[in-house]
Amino acid sequence: MKVVVTGGSGFLGRTLAATLLRRGELTGPSGRAERIDSLVLFDAVGPTEAVGPGDARVEVVVGDVADADQVRALVDRDDTSVFHLASMVSYGCELDFDAALRVNLDGGRAVLEACRSRGGSCRLVFSSSIAAFGGAAMPDVVDDTTKLTPETTYGTTKAICELLVNDYTRKGYLDGRTARLPTVVVRPGRPNAAASSWVSGIVREPLNGEECVVPVDRTTRVPLSGYRTIVDNLVRLHEADGAALGDDRSCNLPALAVTVQDMIEALRRTADRPLGPITVRPDPAILEIYRGWARRSAFPRAIALGLTVDESLERIIQTYIDDFLAPPAPARRSVSSSDGPS
Amino acid sequence: MKVVVTGGSGFLGRTLAATLLRRGELTGPSGRAERIDSLVLFDAVGPTEAVGPGDARVEVVVGDVADADQVRALVDRDDTSVFHLASMVSYGCELDFDAALRVNLDGGRAVLEACRSRGGSCRLVFSSSIAAFGGAAMPDVVDDTTKLTPETTYGTTKAICELLVNDYTRKGYLDGRTARLPTVVVRPGRPNAAASSWVSGIVREPLNGEECVVPVDRTTRVPLSGYRTIVDNLVRLHEADGAALGDDRSCNLPALAVTVQDMIEALRRTADRPLGPITVRPDPAILEIYRGWARRSAFPRAIALGLTVDESLERIIQTYIDDFLAPPAPARRSVSSSDGPS
Repeated sequence: MKVVVTGGSGFLGRTLAATLLRRGELTGPSGRAERIDSLVLFDAVGPTEAVGPGDARVEVVVGDVADADQVRALVDRDDTSVFHLASMVSYGCELDFDAALRVNLDGGRAVLEACRSRGGSCRLVFSSSIAAFGGAAMPDVVDDTTKLTPETTYGTTKAICELLVNDYTRKGYLDGRTARLPTVVVRPGRPNAAASSWVSGIVREPLNGEECVVPVDRTTRVPLSGYRTIVDNLVRLHEADGAALGDDRSCNLPALAVTVQDMIEALRRTADRPLGPITVRPDPAILEIYRGWARRSAFPRAIALGLTVDESLERIIQTYIDDFLAPPAPARRSVSSSDGPS
Repeated sequence: MKVVVTGGSGFLGRTLAATLLRRGELTGPSGRAERIDSLVLFDAVGPTEAVGPGDARVEVVVGDVADADQVRALVDRDDTSVFHLASMVSYGCELDFDAALRVNLDGGRAVLEACRSRGGSCRLVFSSSIAAFGGAAMPDVVDDTTKLTPETTYGTTKAICELLVNDYTRKGYLDGRTARLPTVVVRPGRPNAAASSWVSGIVREPLNGEECVVPVDRTTRVPLSGYRTIVDNLVRLHEADGAALGDDRSCNLPALAVTVQDMIEALRRTADRPLGPITVRPDPAILEIYRGWARRSAFPRAIALGLTVDESLERIIQTYIDDFLAPPAPARRSVSSSDGPS
């Protein structure tokens, strides 16, 4: 079978792709495990580092997700599964409304139509976001049946695509499943235009000996999940029994709800090297976005489907250290305690 | 000020237009009542009967609501209010998915963009539908905070446009308000492609001495409202204080939740002439649609905003008789009782 990952150059797309290449198979239209013989990574730009270098199954395609013809050309086999991760991020959507609708809404429609063109055999996993919740009427804990009243254009486009995934599935045009992602940590590399970018930064920058400026309050609570768990859960959602999902194909992915202070303390406990400083300096624009977002989530559908929960914040941080950081230089280990985060 | 009514050739559009012409004014961008000097009725076809014949304020424009340029040309003044009623109906959307997305979703976006082009001064009232509710998780009574998980493409497009109205309003691109309409009765004329067409037919056809075939069970319960109340509430929603609406700009319109049997009995009590027969013959396709729809609704936001509730089913039927039927011929009055609905 063929797998298409949109947003395939992004961190999550590359991590998912590497996992799929290792795994080697997915449930195909037959309902049985089928060998993945083709994996297409589609994105607006090429990946900064190769995915599965030299692996003949991998193809990188650079293009525009809102170009329906281009996207349809990717789904050229009936036995295709699509992981639709391509998206403009939250703060970027606030800055450019038109681009947000083009990439996230028109792009979503292009992906749905591409799947539909195969006559109903394709399975689709769409990455929505907990940012699809929001607003004055939002309860303290958002669950799978909470009304989506997003307070950002990003969340709006995600909520709209959730509705479309449900209706395309109801019509038999595809077999869609939507994962509502919490904040994904710890993303390697540099900060991005997501309003949640600092949630990775608060771990990543200090471990690199750099300063992290946190644009929210110390008590701000964020539902988050480690990237390995997220990718594992995306695959599990793909594999899940569609009938068990029912008519609303969306579920909250499992998440830990932790505060800024929790993150700082977990980082102190876990770090194996001197840490750069953490400066809490609330930014009104980011605070405003966070005011409209969910602080805690429940995820009964995900648990019923067999998806998994992160063990702890410390485990998430340790995984990042193991995956992305070189062992600390022996000479520097002894100075760590006095140079902790502020 | 200028008022644009999309779907202006439809029954509700024409009734609203006549009401606005009589009323003569609406709250404009200034926040004060302003005189309506231009009323545009926009629709895919012209109206079968003139609205306000000879009234210099009225202009009929025939066009495609999904044609963004055409729709933008209608909103050519900052002091424009738009009532966006244009829509493919429920069963029609089930029959033609692509047209449903084009007319209801792309059309909705064209209307929103047309308003946005005036820089934020336009007020918009969008007619959504109680069909935006649905699905296995739907509670017995749907209210303003119930999650929209529609089970029809019609409901899906309505739910999507509700999200867009919220976000365009949040961004300050327009001042949007969404009315979630129950089934509108009693529509004059002929049946249409709405799955709810029979709800008007069950009153209209027998009063015309014709048979009505009801495609659902006698116990099927439907939230409905008379057209005069609906139009009055659309105007009240336009006039309402936007701040009182908050960040979720949608509200259920008030409705009576009545069964097929209730309707038959109310018709018997109210009719002033011999009635044609009513045949209950459930149609699996229509029943299936009704299974996914809400049976009862609550409407606390509408009541808080000062919208009104129908007095009774009998009052709704009597209004239809008064507005659309000629007095019964004296010779036929005496034979009415034995010729009631079955």
